[in-house]
Amino acid sequence: MSDLKLIILGNGAAVPTSYQNPTSQLLVYKGKQFMIDCGEGTQMQMIKFKIRHRKLNHIFISHMHGDHYYGLIGLLSTFHLYGREEPLTISAPAALEGIIKLQLEAAKMTLKYKLIFQYLEEMGETPLCEDDSYTINAFTLKHSVPSWGFVFREKPRLRRIRKLFIEEKKLIPEQIINIKQGNDFVDSNGISYLNSEITESPRESSSYAYCSDTAYSESVIEHIRGVDLLYHESTFDNAMEKIAIEKKHSTAAHAAMIAEKSNAKKLLLGHFSARFSNLNILLDEAKVIFPNTVLSKEGLTYII
Amino acid sequence: MSDLKLIILGNGAAVPTSYQNPTSQLLVYKGKQFMIDCGEGTQMQMIKFKIRHRKLNHIFISHMHGDHYYGLIGLLSTFHLYGREEPLTISAPAALEGIIKLQLEAAKMTLKYKLIFQYLEEMGETPLCEDDSYTINAFTLKHSVPSWGFVFREKPRLRRIRKLFIEEKKLIPEQIINIKQGNDFVDSNGISYLNSEITESPRESSSYAYCSDTAYSESVIEHIRGVDLLYHESTFDNAMEKIAIEKKHSTAAHAAMIAEKSNAKKLLLGHFSARFSNLNILLDEAKVIFPNTVLSKEGLTYII
Repeated sequence: MSDLKLIILGNGAAVPTSYQNPTSQLLVYKGKQFMIDCGEGTQMQMIKFKIRHRKLNHIFISHMHGDHYYGLIGLLSTFHLYGREEPLTISAPAALEGIIKLQLEAAKMTLKYKLIFQYLEEMGETPLCEDDSYTINAFTLKHSVPSWGFVFREKPRLRRIRKLFIEEKKLIPEQIINIKQGNDFVDSNGISYLNSEITESPRESSSYAYCSDTAYSESVIEHIRGVDLLYHESTFDNAMEKIAIEKKHSTAAHAAMIAEKSNAKKLLLGHFSARFSNLNILLDEAKVIFPNTVLSKEGLTYII
Repeated sequence: MSDLKLIILGNGAAVPTSYQNPTSQLLVYKGKQFMIDCGEGTQMQMIKFKIRHRKLNHIFISHMHGDHYYGLIGLLSTFHLYGREEPLTISAPAALEGIIKLQLEAAKMTLKYKLIFQYLEEMGETPLCEDDSYTINAFTLKHSVPSWGFVFREKPRLRRIRKLFIEEKKLIPEQIINIKQGNDFVDSNGISYLNSEITESPRESSSYAYCSDTAYSESVIEHIRGVDLLYHESTFDNAMEKIAIEKKHSTAAHAAMIAEKSNAKKLLLGHFSARFSNLNILLDEAKVIFPNTVLSKEGLTYII
């Protein structure tokens, strides 16, 4: 099973409704939490869905429209009031730092933890963070204000050694890593084992891409190629394509075309306009183009 | 029946819980809506409680702690997206204007309606707005940042003419107003009627005061004397009085003492710390001092 999962906290567009919160989602990987966007009420959604934030050390803000970040200052204040001490990194447009600092100043609040701002810049794909097992990069979208998408890619995984062999040969950690990396093994009696005899192929690496807010833009394809799951905004339906183009948003069909052309495995629609009380029209329009499409739902977890 | 009512949208302290939102309330008077404070999620609370905002033309922000204003920018954005054109006045500490303007700039959003900022200042009781029938004034509270309370007072009402007399004499509007103001009446036959014969005493004027956030402070008494309803913060219980004093908040007993000393008719407790899952301890401690006390409840309307 994959180590990567996505929790949708909010998937509405600019105006909230009784059934839709502004955008926020949590990517969870091996005990780490990465938040993407943080619309108003995100901290309440976390309470509602019983999600703790102890492992949240990095927040990504896609752009400076309020439905993607108005909840951030509240979340930061709550972290402070709960005594957080771990540093928190925020990858965001540069303008966000001034806004957050002004609000902290006005409240005479000196955070108990360090806030590290990493500015998003308008260039090609930019690495934001990584460790031994994953990378998260940003790439530019096409919206009415500068906007960024994010792509999470798990690094190639190591080969899997057969459990019985580990026990039989009483392998020590160094030997295990060596074999996992694809090397053959010679035991204490000098008997040699081919790596292919004692290991299995690694599980495929997982990947996820987030594109919101954006107009239909084929320039994102090179950055998200082949991802296991693509979350792409679909604010409007086909009948409103003209408005989508004018407002630099996408229709569900646009999202599906991007999923199709980038060879994504699965498409998750989101950022729904408040005017759709029934989202099936969006789902149907996307499925015509890209059958493996689902509607995102707040509170649901998607295993990637 | 009174024309004045109060709707509680949020009554929690700094940290939201599954059952408490940050502070916000709506005072409704003769079709006008006045919002006092606007914590994160206020617009969602309005949706939840099915409250329209068409008559909301004035918002009062008590101080610059986020649990009292983080929801404002989202509400302003939603007004814009719904095409609001009526000007909106915001009475608030001066620092708020810069924060709101910076956020609008970052979103490249030029509001379709006019935003009028009225700065709260640290002086005695200051009139903020009024018309023929009411006044709303601000007065200073005692908190860790400058903080203001608000008092709504209905002006003395006019006398009530007996309905039958209006019909019988076919009174025209000018005559009605004249009589309501206390004057006697002479009909077309020259017959004179004493005002006391044809009118009844006016209904008593209504009044409401809001004190949050504040430490126990007797200096507020002169501003809120005799109000029909006093909303006073009661963040802590008696056992936490030391913390209340240190953090410049009040206990429920403090709130009750202020209600008692100011001769308020009724006390509404609010701004409850997230640590109390059962608020009855606060209610009980207040009632010992001021029996006509109730706990505020989100979504409830209080007729004043």
